[in-house]
Order: sequence, then structure tokens, then C-alpha cells
Amino acid sequence: MKITALAGGVGGAKLAHGLAQVLSPEELTIIVNTGDDFEHLGLTICPDLDTVCYTLANLANPETGWGRKDETWNVIANIEKLGGPSWFRLGDSDFATHIERTRRLKEGQTLTQITQDFCKAWGIKHSILPMSDSPVRTMVNTDAGELAFQEYFVHRRCEPRVKGFRFEGVEIAEPTVGVKEAVESADVIVICPSNPWVSIDPIIKTLTPALSLKGRGRMVVAVSPIIGGKAIKGPAAKMFSELGIEPSALAVAKHYRNILDGFVLDDVDSNLEDEIKKINMKTWKTNTLMNNVSDRTRLANDVLHFIGSLLT
Amino acid sequence: MKITALAGGVGGAKLAHGLAQVLSPEELTIIVNTGDDFEHLGLTICPDLDTVCYTLANLANPETGWGRKDETWNVIANIEKLGGPSWFRLGDSDFATHIERTRRLKEGQTLTQITQDFCKAWGIKHSILPMSDSPVRTMVNTDAGELAFQEYFVHRRCEPRVKGFRFEGVEIAEPTVGVKEAVESADVIVICPSNPWVSIDPIIKTLTPALSLKGRGRMVVAVSPIIGGKAIKGPAAKMFSELGIEPSALAVAKHYRNILDGFVLDDVDSNLEDEIKKINMKTWKTNTLMNNVSDRTRLANDVLHFIGSLLT
Repeated sequence: MKITALAGGVGGAKLAHGLAQVLSPEELTIIVNTGDDFEHLGLTICPDLDTVCYTLANLANPETGWGRKDETWNVIANIEKLGGPSWFRLGDSDFATHIERTRRLKEGQTLTQITQDFCKAWGIKHSILPMSDSPVRTMVNTDAGELAFQEYFVHRRCEPRVKGFRFEGVEIAEPTVGVKEAVESADVIVICPSNPWVSIDPIIKTLTPALSLKGRGRMVVAVSPIIGGKAIKGPAAKMFSELGIEPSALAVAKHYRNILDGFVLDDVDSNLEDEIKKINMKTWKTNTLMNNVSDRTRLANDVLHFIGSLLT
Repeated sequence: MKITALAGGVGGAKLAHGLAQVLSPEELTIIVNTGDDFEHLGLTICPDLDTVCYTLANLANPETGWGRKDETWNVIANIEKLGGPSWFRLGDSDFATHIERTRRLKEGQTLTQITQDFCKAWGIKHSILPMSDSPVRTMVNTDAGELAFQEYFVHRRCEPRVKGFRFEGVEIAEPTVGVKEAVESADVIVICPSNPWVSIDPIIKTLTPALSLKGRGRMVVAVSPIIGGKAIKGPAAKMFSELGIEPSALAVAKHYRNILDGFVLDDVDSNLEDEIKKINMKTWKTNTLMNNVSDRTRLANDVLHFIGSLLT
């Protein structure tokens, strides 16, 4: 069985890591959002891609959810001392990733090639694919005007009220050959518990209509990033609210209603199960919290059991 | 009395630091070579400028002569792990200088403005001026072909035999307004004990013919970077030899013969004093070795005594 996972940042990276513990590199490919990439300090920074890579390589900082463990902070401290922009906190070994990536991009290498090389250097066996080699940039329409995603997310701390999203470049961006193959050869697409608005939507909008996520027996299954009406991390719940939708696992299922065959919700959201079933998808209830590495493997196995039940 | 010093890397930085201990910011301005600047890892790196700034700010690494003290090395170690170029060893806090400088250059700030800002942040009171805001790049003609300076100096460890030098961009590069003023208002130009071929010549060739180092009573005095036929650091002596000139304080004095009024040589080179006098310049013998900060101040005071004797 071949599974292709779609992942954004922290939550997506955790489930992708869990899936990588139980599936071989032939069985699992991970497609990652690049909509939150940005140019900063002259460097191309790919936060979701790096979070997924660092997590799979056991290099991630488990406390922050971003950046690397055992990190030092001399570069950013000295940039700050020189009066440079320091609101985006980059650690020293993290800087190396961005500097070397930017150098290679300027040399003409694709983000896909670079990511593949970096994964090899970090000992990652599974394929991690950026959704496209062309830039797609998530723009957040807010009551403070349209903001580039990191400007909204990090610099403004998600404080402006969200009114909508625009994915700059999405009309031009093509899914890469590797992404096409990963989708078309997959038996199941797993949408990881990442922010639907700004982590998964950019992937879906970049992949379709060139590609059909569903098709020829391929199923799509999502894991809810909303538990008990709240996001574990990040502004997903806040975004639902500000867009006039009560944040819940049901809201997530509805968000993906046109593509989902199955939906994994948390045990605490049992009360929503019947309503989710009504929008024409199968459900699976489990503990979806991932506080440690064994939680990730447990949830990955749960998702695989659910998939197994759907296929039989 | 106003003094303007011309300086390259380590030796020049040490004497500039000594002069800064005994002269006020009104009395001393330092013009620094930018011929060894280069673009590396997407960053504009200015080794001589940084060495002078770090030295005056007490941030320099006294052991290496380049880079900063109390430095960490996580960025370059991780770039190396990713297969990136790691032959030019940059420390983490040093990286901050290059990243922030490059960011500002791309924003349109001049190297002069940026250096002024950085000096302020580092608590440096004296003016440190890059010789020009336009790029001048020292190219070394060798038996292995023409090499960019850092390629020759760091990557190839000065191993190729030198046949000559070319200063790319020098015909177009203008001395800045600040440099012009620093030269024209100076009573004395002090050529610090830096490499004549690749540290001082690029400055002189950039400043002239727009500016005359000598003129209207202004004198030029040099301190020999060659002691007992050897350079304290760097390839100056090797360059003289490969160009068919016996390396010595005399060779340095001859190199500058058209502009010098006075020449400071080391006590160990007493035997050369008469010959130096013959090429029409005054001499001053002293201990020119600078092993510690008090040596720098001592030599600076010696140079000032010499200048005093020339002026009376």
C-alpha cells in the first residue's frame, strides 16, 4: 500500500514522523506546504519544509515546535545588535540550512533537489517533497490589510483579524514530477493535522486541477487538527472563528467535504461524529494528541487501521 | 594634527588600534582596503574592514588574527554537513555581520553608511572608512592562472606562485566623499604595516589620481610590514620573492619610494637604514613587533614621535 501524506508545520510533521516509523520509504511520501516560505535577510526560508525535515531527522526542538534542538543563537543576537530585523528567530544551525539552500537556489538547483540532498545529509530515508518548485506565497487578508504569511504569523503574532487568504503564484505553480507521481501512485492520501487554511489549502490548490487527489480508487483521509474546538498549536481555531465558522472537528470535515473519504477525530469530539458521518464520510475516533514520539506512532497506526477498514 | 591611516588586515588593524588609543576621533581616521572583499555564500564579506572594526572594538580573535573572539561555529559546521562550501571559515557572530551588511547593501545603503552604523553599534568612536563604495576586487595572477584574492589567499593557501596583481573595478571606483575629506584634511598619511601588494596598493590605486596623498605640506609615512626579511603574518614576503625582489624593509621602502617622506623600520633591520635613507626618505628605527595591546600603543607613540620630528 502506498500512502502520500500532505503536511504543513508542527502537527503535520508529528504525524508524518509517526507514519515514517511504521511505513517504509517505498510506502510513504510526504508532500509539504511551501506557502509559508518567505525571503528574509536575503535568505529563502521554508518553515514547514524545515519543520518536517528536522522532525523526521530527530533534529527538531520539541519545546518550540520550530527550529532545532541544541541550538545556539549567536547570529540573530548579533544581527539584533547591529540593528537588523530580529523578529523572526533563527538559530545558528537553522541559519546554515537557509544560507546553503539560498546559495543552491541561486545556482539554479530546484527546491526539490536541494531538499532531497539535505534529507540525505540528515539521514532521512523517506521522500519529503515541496509541493512545487515555483514559489507560492500565502497572503493573509486581515483587518490590518493584506499581510505576507510570516508577517501575519510571526511578526504580528496572528493578532490582525483574518478575512481570507490568497495564494500568490498558485495559478502558475506546477506540482513537480515527483509530486505528481507521489499522488498518482498513492492508494491513500493522508491529510495530516495541519492548519486547513494556510497549511493544507495551499497544497491542495497547487496540486489541483493538474492532479486529482481522489481517483482510480485512491482515497483521501484527514486527521482533525482541531480537538475540543481548539487547535493544539497555531491559529487554525482563531481563523475559523474570524471567518464566521465555529471551530470544531466538524468544521474541518466540512472544509474538506469535497475530497474526503474518511475523517479521524479525537475521542473528546465524539458528539460530532454523527454529524460528520452525515456529510458522507467514514469516521474514526481515537486519541489524536501527540505529546511524544510514541504518541505519533500510535496515531499513525490508528490512521493505518482506519485506512485498512476503509479498503476492505 | 590630523592623521589618516591606510590599513589592510591584521598588522594594519593592530597599528590602527594603537593609534586609536593615543589619538582622538577628531585626530585619526582610518581608510581600509576593500580589495579583498568577495561574494561568498550569497554574502558580501569584507575581511579587512571587519578585522579593523573588530580589532578597534576589542571583538577580534587575538589568536587567529581574523574573526571574532568567544566565537561559535555552528553555521559553518552545518553548511559543511549539507555539502556546502566551508573552506572560508566564518564564525556565527561573524556571519551576522555579513548577513546584515548584505541585507543593507541590497536595500541600497552604501558600504560607508553600513560601516558607520556597525561601528556605532560596536562602540567604535573613530571613523573607519572603506576606500570606496564601489567594488574593487584584487585578482592575483599566478602560475595557476588568475585567481580572485580569497581563492588564492584562503582556498589555495597562497600556494600558487604570484606573477602580478590586477585590481578589478579600480578604474571606475571612486574614493568616497569621506575618504577625500580624510585625505585632504590630513597633515600626515600613515601607511600601516599591511601587505604592500594586496592591502595598501589597492587603496593607493583607488585614491589616486583623484586624490594626491602628498600635497600642500601633507606627509606620508609608512611602517614596514617586513621585519628581518619576513612578514609577521601573511604572504607579503613570499610575494616579494616570487616577483623577483628580495623581501626586506628596504624592498618595502622602495615599493613606496614615490610617495614616502618617512619610513619606520624595525631595530633588527638597522643594517638597511643607510640604503633606505639613500632613496630620499627619513627613517625611524624601533621595535615594530606588536604582540599585545601595549605594543600597539607603544608603536603608535613611536610613529607619532617620528612624525613630530619630521614636522619640526
